[in-house]
Amino acid sequence: MTIADDPATTLPGYKWVGTRPIRPDGFDKVTGRARFGADLTLAGMLEGAVLRSPHAHARIVSIDTTKALALPGVKAIVTGADFPEPAGNPTDQDMCRNAMAREKVLYEGHVVAAVAATSKRIARKALDAIEVQYEVLPHVMTVDEAMAPGAVLLHDGMITKGMDPAPTEPSNVASRVVYQRGELDKGFADADVIVERTFTTKPVHQGYIEPHAAVADTTPDGRSTVWCSSQGHFAMRAYSAKVLGWDPSRLKVIPAEIGGGFGGKTTIYLEPLAVRLSQKAGRPVRMVMDRDEVFMATGPASASKVTIKMGANKAGEITAAELWMAYEAGAYPGSAIGAGSMTALAPYNIPHFIIEGFDVVVNKPRVYSYRAPGAPQSAFAVESVVDELAHKLGIDPIDFRLQNAVEEGMQAPYGPKYQKIGFKETLEAIKHHPHYSAPLGPNQGRGVAAGFWFNAGMNSSAVVHINEDGNATVVTGSPDIGGSRASMALMAAEELGIDYNRVRPVVADTEQVGFNDVTGGSRVTLATGAAVVDACRKVIADLRARAAKTWDVPVEQVEWVDGQAQHVDGSQPPLSLAAIAKGWARTGGPISAAATLNARGVGAGFSTQLVDVEVDPETGHTSVVRYTTAQDAGRAIHPSYVEGQLQGGVVQGIGWALNEEYIYNADGKMDNPSFLDYRIPVASDLPMIDAVIVEVPNPGHPYGVRGVGEVGIVPPLAAVANAVAAATHRRFTDLPLSPPRVLDGILNGTEES
Amino acid sequence: MTIADDPATTLPGYKWVGTRPIRPDGFDKVTGRARFGADLTLAGMLEGAVLRSPHAHARIVSIDTTKALALPGVKAIVTGADFPEPAGNPTDQDMCRNAMAREKVLYEGHVVAAVAATSKRIARKALDAIEVQYEVLPHVMTVDEAMAPGAVLLHDGMITKGMDPAPTEPSNVASRVVYQRGELDKGFADADVIVERTFTTKPVHQGYIEPHAAVADTTPDGRSTVWCSSQGHFAMRAYSAKVLGWDPSRLKVIPAEIGGGFGGKTTIYLEPLAVRLSQKAGRPVRMVMDRDEVFMATGPASASKVTIKMGANKAGEITAAELWMAYEAGAYPGSAIGAGSMTALAPYNIPHFIIEGFDVVVNKPRVYSYRAPGAPQSAFAVESVVDELAHKLGIDPIDFRLQNAVEEGMQAPYGPKYQKIGFKETLEAIKHHPHYSAPLGPNQGRGVAAGFWFNAGMNSSAVVHINEDGNATVVTGSPDIGGSRASMALMAAEELGIDYNRVRPVVADTEQVGFNDVTGGSRVTLATGAAVVDACRKVIADLRARAAKTWDVPVEQVEWVDGQAQHVDGSQPPLSLAAIAKGWARTGGPISAAATLNARGVGAGFSTQLVDVEVDPETGHTSVVRYTTAQDAGRAIHPSYVEGQLQGGVVQGIGWALNEEYIYNADGKMDNPSFLDYRIPVASDLPMIDAVIVEVPNPGHPYGVRGVGEVGIVPPLAAVANAVAAATHRRFTDLPLSPPRVLDGILNGTEES
Repeated sequence: MTIADDPATTLPGYKWVGTRPIRPDGFDKVTGRARFGADLTLAGMLEGAVLRSPHAHARIVSIDTTKALALPGVKAIVTGADFPEPAGNPTDQDMCRNAMAREKVLYEGHVVAAVAATSKRIARKALDAIEVQYEVLPHVMTVDEAMAPGAVLLHDGMITKGMDPAPTEPSNVASRVVYQRGELDKGFADADVIVERTFTTKPVHQGYIEPHAAVADTTPDGRSTVWCSSQGHFAMRAYSAKVLGWDPSRLKVIPAEIGGGFGGKTTIYLEPLAVRLSQKAGRPVRMVMDRDEVFMATGPASASKVTIKMGANKAGEITAAELWMAYEAGAYPGSAIGAGSMTALAPYNIPHFIIEGFDVVVNKPRVYSYRAPGAPQSAFAVESVVDELAHKLGIDPIDFRLQNAVEEGMQAPYGPKYQKIGFKETLEAIKHHPHYSAPLGPNQGRGVAAGFWFNAGMNSSAVVHINEDGNATVVTGSPDIGGSRASMALMAAEELGIDYNRVRPVVADTEQVGFNDVTGGSRVTLATGAAVVDACRKVIADLRARAAKTWDVPVEQVEWVDGQAQHVDGSQPPLSLAAIAKGWARTGGPISAAATLNARGVGAGFSTQLVDVEVDPETGHTSVVRYTTAQDAGRAIHPSYVEGQLQGGVVQGIGWALNEEYIYNADGKMDNPSFLDYRIPVASDLPMIDAVIVEVPNPGHPYGVRGVGEVGIVPPLAAVANAVAAATHRRFTDLPLSPPRVLDGILNGTEES
Repeated sequence: MTIADDPATTLPGYKWVGTRPIRPDGFDKVTGRARFGADLTLAGMLEGAVLRSPHAHARIVSIDTTKALALPGVKAIVTGADFPEPAGNPTDQDMCRNAMAREKVLYEGHVVAAVAATSKRIARKALDAIEVQYEVLPHVMTVDEAMAPGAVLLHDGMITKGMDPAPTEPSNVASRVVYQRGELDKGFADADVIVERTFTTKPVHQGYIEPHAAVADTTPDGRSTVWCSSQGHFAMRAYSAKVLGWDPSRLKVIPAEIGGGFGGKTTIYLEPLAVRLSQKAGRPVRMVMDRDEVFMATGPASASKVTIKMGANKAGEITAAELWMAYEAGAYPGSAIGAGSMTALAPYNIPHFIIEGFDVVVNKPRVYSYRAPGAPQSAFAVESVVDELAHKLGIDPIDFRLQNAVEEGMQAPYGPKYQKIGFKETLEAIKHHPHYSAPLGPNQGRGVAAGFWFNAGMNSSAVVHINEDGNATVVTGSPDIGGSRASMALMAAEELGIDYNRVRPVVADTEQVGFNDVTGGSRVTLATGAAVVDACRKVIADLRARAAKTWDVPVEQVEWVDGQAQHVDGSQPPLSLAAIAKGWARTGGPISAAATLNARGVGAGFSTQLVDVEVDPETGHTSVVRYTTAQDAGRAIHPSYVEGQLQGGVVQGIGWALNEEYIYNADGKMDNPSFLDYRIPVASDLPMIDAVIVEVPNPGHPYGVRGVGEVGIVPPLAAVANAVAAATHRRFTDLPLSPPRVLDGILNGTEES
């Protein structure tokens, strides 16, 4: 809506950028032809199954596969002994141990062995026949338990990193991070109002509909082709190679279509198992997770505990903030406590603060990335308290945020200075949206919250090939999880000056395109898009050279305008791309160009969200009745898919706020590993999410793009909680706001003004 | 053996070029894992079958598919009405009509309709249920019949091209070509000996073991993915698109492994049928030819009739040659009469000659390329007569050829001047080979013949990607029919300075690499190889830039030596490719480069061959008892695969000389469409072929490569015939030299001195 007019990045008269054509993969997806992870069948293929730990914490005494191997139809079994000793840095080693347990199992669902057999039924039968002796150990399931003195330790000798002096005793705390500025005491002394609260969230899963699946075909020359659904087949290749002890390029990974990832499909689970099983069996092996395996054994987002103290003066300035944060890492270090700490106060310019964060291992599956990893948990705490401060000061919550909002040139709490950003523009967009002044009904409340996400750049490669009919093929290695084929094609069409339908975007396997980092960090339209633009510009340089050769003039006299080469003085009839392609044999052969980059110029993303809820005072059930989100997209290449990202982030945040949680019993076992008991929002739970695209072009990208995939999930936890607080006059600090918890608050909580 | 020492192209101390490592596709091929055209199975896939004309020449009165469509399991039927009116140039239009007959069928096997059904059995049943009414027409089966006055015409209004003045009446002669030099009368006046004879050959098939196969999956958005085995998937895309009336880039063609092609898999047969059937049925369709379909309906090499008169003086100089040549084109114009005419006299420097060639349509399948297309037939005539002249003059046949052989700077009979060539070196290699002076046994004879082939350049593309482990992926679009993956990897390893096993050569589909012309014309190691070298050199330029950035020095101070960046003054520790790859994120991102070219600098190929045969005077059966071939490879990148090409050409030539022929009955129907009755040489028929690689580097290629795939088939027809003449003292002018024909010659022919 707000189209900023930045002469550096706003090009007048786009023909394709900003339009909404049908996505290139649309037909295949709506007709069921698109092939996802489990859709590949190879001749002679075996089916795999995984034996998983039934215990939250246990020592593996012995594994006997004799009886299982003797079953007719069982072709191969792998255990830890089939993989090399974990090597590399500690994170790599942990990944190896997470992919296949060795001495200990650290959570219910941890991989103990895997079987390949001629049918899934036989494979499961074989799992039952594998005899594993465990020595069960006590378990720790929360940061409080794990950080308690004398807690049972998951890892021998784990010394907390980031402490000075370093602790002498091992603990379950993997690391500590600190971000600070100014003098905290002075800041709180300057405050007229101080709010201090502790917030908690539970583990939540990304909830992708497609379970993990992998097919591997390992050949006698020690190479393997892996077909799997992921957010980055180059990462799947690299990680699988680490587990296997191989050079990455011994693996060819072919990207399947992906039925949701949201950060959770940026690591390996089944892939190296399938490769080794296939190698041992001498046949292709397919492995597909069941839903309970997805829940119990893949990486959800961290549960968190955040204690926050924040002060502001009567003028409406936030003067100080103090945060203590502990995120559950699951069985191995690696929560997003770093990003959670860095993003917590990122929207605000606060003179005095300290953020102290802890990464804590517990006997749960190792967490993994989930959309803006780490940010929603800390934003829940911060945005709840910001709301409460505004309320106590009697200031409109948007005006309060506008007053404290960061802008270009200010220093981010984690260090660097902000470049051009659009946070205030999103606040203004919400403030002036009709929703903000619409009347509320009985038992309804309205909440606002904001969020920040860095967005990422990272490594991307692209190759553009011109076809002999003048069409272009755009080859990238970034799996399309949100319409990126369409955005690549739009940018290429814009650059080359040809019709969008004459551009074919292709997501190539690891052997047919240069290296690409994962599709994550909201980076693809920015970074891979920039690589596509670079490659197109190289192609255009070549096209100009071909025209110059054809006309026998210096290339400087040839311009590329509207998809054709034009002589600067108009002395030659223009040559279209198709005409140049038709004659390429006479001017030097076919036309292709490759481009690679480690993207710079990443533009940070901000979102401001507004929600009305209605809380049933009888049941504690919360309905979301209206939702508006305003987010800075920099430049929306394909607005429909930008809106989809905005809406998707909100919906997932609503689920996190209201219903989703891992429920563990006293034995450390998950009680609700199914979509029946782990409740994600469905269409009937939700209003249409009004997505307002704010466009403050990012000067770091040729079209001003900012990543849009992640920041949308940052505000909803607090926005919904703030709305529930408004509706119930009770402040809730523990998610999810499920009916029993809200009802308990209504019945037993303290009513606030 | 003969390694010429050309300072322009011979680089001292190759590490990889010229070695014989295991081919990258070797394991897959010997373990049966490689997937060929018929090996793909897709979910819901239908099986196709083709209804073919039972008549050599007929008008299609009507086609009724009603009953066939009503059969349970029949999902789609296509006829000429399902394809657009043929468009484009006459050759394109003929290809369309050859792929699917319209008004007329022109040969037994011509496509009339195609069916897709749930099984091959049902599809065949449906073929029987299609009711076609034909009006049978008279047919012409040989050039003599076709060129006779009043012959029935295959095509209305076909006026012979290349005649001045143009004929006023249509005929079956599609075109005439003429090459000439000097004054023929003077040349023959200068001759002391003149030989004049007429030679004929029959149609022979390339005899690839893998029948044509295609799987097509056409989607509702009007695109289709085609999996097929061919010598060039870009050509399959282009030709299928013409038949379908589509833009080529609506098709994605994935190259299967190819089980032999030899020129015969450079055009389409099943592909557009499968695409349209799949489109009509809404399901994938697989089509696989049976062997009889391969024989009857794909393109063999032309039958030929060549009348030649050649004279020489006593000094051993060939003074004049006159050739009249007519090649059967099959049902549509397009024999290799042009190449046959151009190559006929190419090995010799003859002051006076005329070559007149005719392209003649007959009611047989349209011929297609077969290894050095057109050259073996004319060489059979020329090299037989050269042999006879040498014999009559009492000159050693190699000395006679050496005396008349072309060399650098001489003008080829078809126009241009020869660049550096190695013809004389091949003659010398044979002359000095122990075989040439070995004693012969009873009923044995020795024959010599030479051959020339242009070799080709054409369009190629390559992309080289560096992996994060420092390995390289080399992506080309040239199907590997003779070990080209290995030669690409060797050249890339040599350029980059890394181990051969760290290079992964990939043949990519039409969407994942730039355009490539067919794997044919012996062009791939030259042209695609040059593109790979170009791409590697771009990569090296980038690697040097990365090192310069790392060291903060000008790039001019960085050299690439032995797979590592070195500072010219040794002031920095060298950086290996792997080290640069590991750090690429800090120096600009991943490393890839694309290169394209229309190859220049093609080096012509020559072969001289020597064969001993033994003819059984009782049966006329000829055994090949010893065979030596010497061929100029320019530079043998992988000598084993060069030897394989040399041997393969010889073996196919032996088959042509001794046994292979299409046998037609009076109805114009093929009597021997199976490998039982059409006899290609098998291992037990053959001695080990001694392959002598002569290396006269081609200055036009970075490693001196000349194409090696084709010229080896040019000399054997005459070499074997000359040996049989020596053994039997009878001159045979009609191939094949099958036992009945040889026995007839022995019993009834004229004994010569």
